[in-house]
Amino acid sequence: MGSENKGEIVTKTKDTPVPMNGAESLVHSLIGSGVEACFSNPGTSEMHFVAALDHIPGMRSVLTLQEGVATGAADGYYRMAGKPACTLLHLGPGLANGLSNLHNAKKAGSGVVNIVGEHAASHIELDAPLTSDIQGIARPVSHWVHSSTSATDVGADAADAVHAANIAPGQVATLILPSDTAWTEGGIVAAPRTPATKLDFNLAALPSAVEALAGPDSLLLLGGAALSEENLKVAGQIAAKTGCAILSEWSNARLERGAGRVSIGRVPYPIDQALKVLDPFKRIVLIGARAPIGFFAYPGKPAVLTRDDAAILELAHPTTDLTAALARLAEAVDATGVDPAFVAAAALPDRPTGKLAADNIAAVLGRMIPQDAIVVDESVTTGRSFFPATAGAPRHTWLNNCGGSIGYGMPVAIGAAVACPDRKVLGLIGDGSAMYTVQALWTMAREDLDITIVIFANRSYQILRGELTNVGVGNPGPRAIDMLSLDRPDLQWVQMAQSMGVEACQVADCEAFELALETGLASSSPYLIQVDI
Amino acid sequence: MGSENKGEIVTKTKDTPVPMNGAESLVHSLIGSGVEACFSNPGTSEMHFVAALDHIPGMRSVLTLQEGVATGAADGYYRMAGKPACTLLHLGPGLANGLSNLHNAKKAGSGVVNIVGEHAASHIELDAPLTSDIQGIARPVSHWVHSSTSATDVGADAADAVHAANIAPGQVATLILPSDTAWTEGGIVAAPRTPATKLDFNLAALPSAVEALAGPDSLLLLGGAALSEENLKVAGQIAAKTGCAILSEWSNARLERGAGRVSIGRVPYPIDQALKVLDPFKRIVLIGARAPIGFFAYPGKPAVLTRDDAAILELAHPTTDLTAALARLAEAVDATGVDPAFVAAAALPDRPTGKLAADNIAAVLGRMIPQDAIVVDESVTTGRSFFPATAGAPRHTWLNNCGGSIGYGMPVAIGAAVACPDRKVLGLIGDGSAMYTVQALWTMAREDLDITIVIFANRSYQILRGELTNVGVGNPGPRAIDMLSLDRPDLQWVQMAQSMGVEACQVADCEAFELALETGLASSSPYLIQVDI
Repeated sequence: MGSENKGEIVTKTKDTPVPMNGAESLVHSLIGSGVEACFSNPGTSEMHFVAALDHIPGMRSVLTLQEGVATGAADGYYRMAGKPACTLLHLGPGLANGLSNLHNAKKAGSGVVNIVGEHAASHIELDAPLTSDIQGIARPVSHWVHSSTSATDVGADAADAVHAANIAPGQVATLILPSDTAWTEGGIVAAPRTPATKLDFNLAALPSAVEALAGPDSLLLLGGAALSEENLKVAGQIAAKTGCAILSEWSNARLERGAGRVSIGRVPYPIDQALKVLDPFKRIVLIGARAPIGFFAYPGKPAVLTRDDAAILELAHPTTDLTAALARLAEAVDATGVDPAFVAAAALPDRPTGKLAADNIAAVLGRMIPQDAIVVDESVTTGRSFFPATAGAPRHTWLNNCGGSIGYGMPVAIGAAVACPDRKVLGLIGDGSAMYTVQALWTMAREDLDITIVIFANRSYQILRGELTNVGVGNPGPRAIDMLSLDRPDLQWVQMAQSMGVEACQVADCEAFELALETGLASSSPYLIQVDI
Repeated sequence: MGSENKGEIVTKTKDTPVPMNGAESLVHSLIGSGVEACFSNPGTSEMHFVAALDHIPGMRSVLTLQEGVATGAADGYYRMAGKPACTLLHLGPGLANGLSNLHNAKKAGSGVVNIVGEHAASHIELDAPLTSDIQGIARPVSHWVHSSTSATDVGADAADAVHAANIAPGQVATLILPSDTAWTEGGIVAAPRTPATKLDFNLAALPSAVEALAGPDSLLLLGGAALSEENLKVAGQIAAKTGCAILSEWSNARLERGAGRVSIGRVPYPIDQALKVLDPFKRIVLIGARAPIGFFAYPGKPAVLTRDDAAILELAHPTTDLTAALARLAEAVDATGVDPAFVAAAALPDRPTGKLAADNIAAVLGRMIPQDAIVVDESVTTGRSFFPATAGAPRHTWLNNCGGSIGYGMPVAIGAAVACPDRKVLGLIGDGSAMYTVQALWTMAREDLDITIVIFANRSYQILRGELTNVGVGNPGPRAIDMLSLDRPDLQWVQMAQSMGVEACQVADCEAFELALETGLASSSPYLIQVDI
């Protein structure tokens, strides 16, 4: 029997079928469909999947100590690899722990394949302690949910899940794996499914879009795949030709930036600034972006951020072929071959000195971001001024949180580092956000990932201080302020990092921050810098 | 206007209605219904609730840095206070982060009132980044889910939620609060609702139960409220009279133990041991317990743990009046006034020495558990031998995880300490479990809670090593073992605790462990002991 030799690669071909269980067919089918990384926290019901990973080569297994790290890592992996990783989660509660970062992944248009263990079918009806409504937990964050019903189907189910995850821009697919379908013999390896073609953009709207983009009171608002280097160049050509402005949404799953690339600003998060930035625009064309709305509702303020008389035209929905949409638009306005507008010149900020605050932190970062870095930005309040100061840095990639649930940054950094082992990952994380998925530090150490984490320690949910005013709470008292503060005790990030095997230091002025960044960027191991502000 | 004076108590009486917004009526109604603690992590959409807490006295607000800590704390609070606390959670993702500990609370029969913020009604349709299907996320872990629709209804909705949470043995009630219902004026304080009476137990089964309980091949299996000191005494009387054995389920929400009390063993977790312990019993009567089933399904092993020919009779479902059921049963077997069997004598284990392992850890604990301590047990593998060695310790309370989702222990310890500020809380936590909700340490420090945490650092998901064998994976390879190990790097718990403001030490032998426990138990502040095994 071919499978007796431990460690041998077990594959099924038309000519020589090899007996295997459902879990083995699942792992083979995932790998065959291009899934090469698994971010996991398994339990008893997933042991056959773990055993299959043990002897089937081709999948990198990354252990996390809380499932929010696993799902966030899968999000980051998709953004940078352009194909889904899988997660391995223990029953309903394991999925539940990963749910908020799946929410973020869904909003970012990231493809993720969740493999969620389940009790054997006969065991579910007994209502054991870990029994729960897994489909019910999965559905609010998943585009596709399926429970395998037999070992023979698991392989095909896996291929379907990967297919679903790859539908543009990327979807969350959750495959529930009852343990008896994993351990029963009879698994069949499924061939990868042909990827779905992207939907067509709204070609009928092209003439109106051409008409709309004329002069500085018109805006081309971009999102998703429209923010690649090549697509931004086309957008810059359209802007040069038509005189329109270009902007992206506040949060972008992935934006290419830096010297020599077309530079694009974002619609600001703070509602009053957003209203001001969008006020000039009477005509807005959307390519992969949604019409600008407030992050929250605020009493007495508008929810729609554009002028009442603004004409908004969606040329290309995020699920469509944005590259084709931009190319056709450029052609229609006769911008092909034109020199693009808004190209960022190579320019570094002056060297700042003194105590650290948002502005000089931005300047240090602008001077230090290395070529081809992947910046994972969860800096919330501190980071609002980072964009201008970093526009002329060497070319780099910028990732934002698109779902608004904090705790996305360090996990996404893990996924990005696994996807791109030859690129430096720089995580810019607020202290409140970092605490949400602080277990990520251990996985960074274990996998020896090339990540430098900067923690902005303002000892507060600073964003909420501003929001109190925005929602009309004028004079918050001490008990309210206390609920928004991370002091008493202050978090000691250096000890925190070291407790999980990550080297770390603490800085309070520009000179020390620059030195610390030099150390972190020169290392190929994880490094954490606590920035006191 | 009566509400202009900041800090004044705003209440509504029949005679003098005072204007207030929905959030204020919500806080007043919760307090009026007996809710005195709020475990929170608020965001923008909950700022009016935070503002209301600021000027309305009567509710202790406890900030957590991840919602799993908040929901677990509410679980622990209910177990010890016997009435629900509320949580304050930020939209769907905030609820999602707390979901797995709500699963545990649901399985423990703990009453919890979740207040979950939601966008204003007009904002939901705009599909903002944080928009999600909150009801969908809530339903799998909630007995009761409701979305408020106007400021005038919020108070009554709160009273309904508390009423639902108090239904025996305790339910998870989730109230979704759109931010416009919070900030709009017109709130009305609701009177508390009359608590639901407990359902009647199965009186018709009483004669059969009397017949079943005869001799050592009959078992009285107890759960829930049957494990109070008084009810256990009655069970001991029944055992003395009938010769039956008594046992509890593997996991108990709350069990009263120690010298002078009726001592009860648990059905073991490891399936082979459980089968052996239950094998003698031909007749089983259930009072507040469920018929014994395996925690997981294992190939080739039974899911039902009792003999094939065992007659199982449910005298009292967990939702019914278990005290009445035990009293009537005692009366029917003529056990009233009888000296109870199985009373634990005051007895401490001999003083152990040498390197720490499960057995001598148990002996140290048996010698050290202080009178009236609340033991929160998430020791998973290490703790399997703790029960015999601690049976004769001074009277104490023992809390288990009933839902099987790890990360329950430190949050539940917080809730127990808030509920019982005059009692010592002793948390016995495996390292893998502790990492899940490690953010709890900061809240312990901030609230200066009287908690001693013992971390059993075996650097592994040790339970899964055994489970690999149970599910039929005979010789796991190095990649499989790696996925179950917490080494590379080892977690440094002393630094971890200190990074969040908790004093800590590390021990490896009995003598040092005893000294460390003395230090922790003598302090009224949180203290952590890393036990290397």
